[in-house]
Amino acid sequence: MEDSPAVVSYEDLASIEDEFEEVDAEIMRKQYALSTQIYAKRSQAVRKILNFWPLVVEQAPPEIDQWIQPHDSRIFAESLLNVEVRRPELDDGGAGNPRSISVKFEFKPNDDFEDTELEKTFSYRRARDGWTGLVSEPVKVHWKKGKDLTEGLTDGAVALFEARTKIGDMTATGLPEYTALKKKVDKWNGSNTSFFTWFGWVSQRRWVSAEESEKAVEEYKQGKERRKTRSETKEVEAEIAEAAEDDEEEDEFDDEAVEVHQMGEELAISFAEELWPSAIKFFTQAQEDEISEPDFEDDDDEEDDRDGDEPVDFRALVQDKGDKVRPRESTGGAALPNKKQKKK
Amino acid sequence: MEDSPAVVSYEDLASIEDEFEEVDAEIMRKQYALSTQIYAKRSQAVRKILNFWPLVVEQAPPEIDQWIQPHDSRIFAESLLNVEVRRPELDDGGAGNPRSISVKFEFKPNDDFEDTELEKTFSYRRARDGWTGLVSEPVKVHWKKGKDLTEGLTDGAVALFEARTKIGDMTATGLPEYTALKKKVDKWNGSNTSFFTWFGWVSQRRWVSAEESEKAVEEYKQGKERRKTRSETKEVEAEIAEAAEDDEEEDEFDDEAVEVHQMGEELAISFAEELWPSAIKFFTQAQEDEISEPDFEDDDDEEDDRDGDEPVDFRALVQDKGDKVRPRESTGGAALPNKKQKKK
Repeated sequence: MEDSPAVVSYEDLASIEDEFEEVDAEIMRKQYALSTQIYAKRSQAVRKILNFWPLVVEQAPPEIDQWIQPHDSRIFAESLLNVEVRRPELDDGGAGNPRSISVKFEFKPNDDFEDTELEKTFSYRRARDGWTGLVSEPVKVHWKKGKDLTEGLTDGAVALFEARTKIGDMTATGLPEYTALKKKVDKWNGSNTSFFTWFGWVSQRRWVSAEESEKAVEEYKQGKERRKTRSETKEVEAEIAEAAEDDEEEDEFDDEAVEVHQMGEELAISFAEELWPSAIKFFTQAQEDEISEPDFEDDDDEEDDRDGDEPVDFRALVQDKGDKVRPRESTGGAALPNKKQKKK
Repeated sequence: MEDSPAVVSYEDLASIEDEFEEVDAEIMRKQYALSTQIYAKRSQAVRKILNFWPLVVEQAPPEIDQWIQPHDSRIFAESLLNVEVRRPELDDGGAGNPRSISVKFEFKPNDDFEDTELEKTFSYRRARDGWTGLVSEPVKVHWKKGKDLTEGLTDGAVALFEARTKIGDMTATGLPEYTALKKKVDKWNGSNTSFFTWFGWVSQRRWVSAEESEKAVEEYKQGKERRKTRSETKEVEAEIAEAAEDDEEEDEFDDEAVEVHQMGEELAISFAEELWPSAIKFFTQAQEDEISEPDFEDDDDEEDDRDGDEPVDFRALVQDKGDKVRPRESTGGAALPNKKQKKK
């Protein structure tokens, strides 16, 4: 292989990518700072619109919609009061990672679970082997008797997480909770029975603790500095090679066998980057769709022998509550004419 | 319909959306300012990598890839030297619309066209009826004799645009150039024969001039102010209603019958927001793919009786040029280990 000085190395490219990533993070912080007040104003405004959030969720983009089963639709239509997305590490003047996400749902008292609030936090972490992504502690949904739509998956995920935490080994596989959850996951084999399974999601690969992440970020920053200053010596090369070897060992552990949700991270990002910023657009779409025939929730999931589980006419559910769904039109008709907004 | 004061109006929501839009524009400006230098550095670095851009384009996301036909792939593989995306209204300290986009391709001298540079500029405009989006003057591709991959569509689009400009009526349909182009568009009926047809694209709906846009933005700003100050009087309401009526008349003109490309705007946005910022990621993917079998360009377009037009083995084309494609690895192997970057 030629090694002419005119050829760039992966380090050069990685160093450029580092710089883009820093700009991205700065931009995310700036955007959050500039929009927080507007989101607060929006939250206040939409609280006055009956069924705002159920209608928004109904219009959710496919990345979200594909996870909403008919039973979930019914719960959202009947009980969803509010949705809130935050960047928890930026709140209260925090200078943490802008990629961490928190999604909170508020519900009316309902027949399915005891909770009136379910909040899931996704923390952006870096593993020692260079993997980066979101991880999240499983959130317990307090299902009423016989109502668990997740078929025990969320409870199982919570139980395993707690058992592992107790013995201080987040990769333990010898626990009875592990065996029990693995069996459940095998049974459903990737086909979720409910949107609420998401609350049990942990990671695309495995749990990464805050401590591991901090250490990994520190190592990564040192690597970045090395790339920037281009002061690589043979020792540094050897060190990198060694680290890469260590990584290979760590790489072997993958917790997929007990992961209850296949796209937990993508779903969180869709909530934060699509549904949340474009909620008014989705609501307006829902209003426009009302003119046409009501859609039936498409239901092509495999399980269909649950008690009376049939496609739900979401609009009928929402409209049962009266027709206050539509905001006052007054002079407003002209305010949003043909507003074809392009997707960002 | 109840009209309780607790119910919000469309204006309230529209006013909130206005505020988000202002923040978005500010953020786009900020991001451009912060990244321009890094993009310049990247351009310099990747010029040293043979076939960087052909490999990036080959890995383009589906929104772009679907428009690249086998003949186009061959041209990119053999002749594409550089790609550059700019926000032309922000360059040189400009404070224009950050949503306008310019995409420039540089080519080696080649057998297909005379141009070594093709640049298309997409201007973000607002029509008087509230429509917003990108519009673009058709760009002439100087095809060599018998080589026009677009089957006359780009030439036809340029000819009509020039004829309309000459008579000062951008919606004229009585021109022979209109009839000729309409016939060609009808013939291909939405199935493009070449990526290069994009250069003839004008608008999702119709041409909107800079003058019309300026006026419309002015009117829109006044509307925004009204929404903000909530000083709607009956007169204002009447005025809005009247404007809406005007709009309806204008709405009737749609230039679809002579539009040579169905998704010109989306394609421009994909170049600006996906291919351009993630070029290094796509290049790295292309490197990783090399380990596996070479892909054949999938070809399911209808037309297939062109001279010897067969699926192109893009990788073979690129590799013919020697194996300098792969950047020097040296210590770099560890620099990008398993870097699973989440999509933004």
